[in-house]
Amino acid sequence: MTTKINFNSKFDKFHEHWSPKIIAEMNDYQFKLVKIKNEFIWHQHEHTDEVFIVIEGKIGIEFENETIEINEGEMIVIPKGKQHRPFAKQEAKIMLIEPRGVVNTGNIESEITAPSDQWI
Amino acid sequence: MTTKINFNSKFDKFHEHWSPKIIAEMNDYQFKLVKIKNEFIWHQHEHTDEVFIVIEGKIGIEFENETIEINEGEMIVIPKGKQHRPFAKQEAKIMLIEPRGVVNTGNIESEITAPSDQWI
Repeated sequence: MTTKINFNSKFDKFHEHWSPKIIAEMNDYQFKLVKIKNEFIWHQHEHTDEVFIVIEGKIGIEFENETIEINEGEMIVIPKGKQHRPFAKQEAKIMLIEPRGVVNTGNIESEITAPSDQWI
Repeated sequence: MTTKINFNSKFDKFHEHWSPKIIAEMNDYQFKLVKIKNEFIWHQHEHTDEVFIVIEGKIGIEFENETIEINEGEMIVIPKGKQHRPFAKQEAKIMLIEPRGVVNTGNIESEITAPSDQWI
């Protein structure tokens, strides 16, 4: 069955921060919605690039040498292996796109490491 | 260099319909913006799923047994090998996500087949 997915309806289904929820798969890639607020941890993904699309609000991503602000209607590709730390001063709603099985904290095991298989 | 991408700024760079423009790559996948209006042709992609995200406006996708309307803030995954025909009664702005090299008309060679390597 082919069904469309409404981002706002999916965002209404959860409230926690930094816990990606899978909404779709395309081949072996997954689309995940996340609500974020405050600072995440420094980490990197050794084996894959990662895409952030801001659906609502504004986020920042710190890299070693710069910080990039990303607003609603904007996206960024984080290159494989590049250290980064996302943050949002106020709650923001974002979509991540990455291969199936990628863990949110990348190379770091932390208390905020979330399961990588939560569908909504 | 890691830079963010603003969808509206990119959409301002072209006007033609049904001619996907690449704005980013993640691993071997590409993000393409397209403006569409009126009906496309029936086609399918034999080797890959394909994602449509509606950035502005409203589109429809005809399948053999149903038509699905997709609005701003919604997405759909077209399964590999599934016949479909996109359309938009008024101009709509969409993003496609698919592997590098996918051709817009899939299995059909047509006068509206567009180059698959146009970056903006």
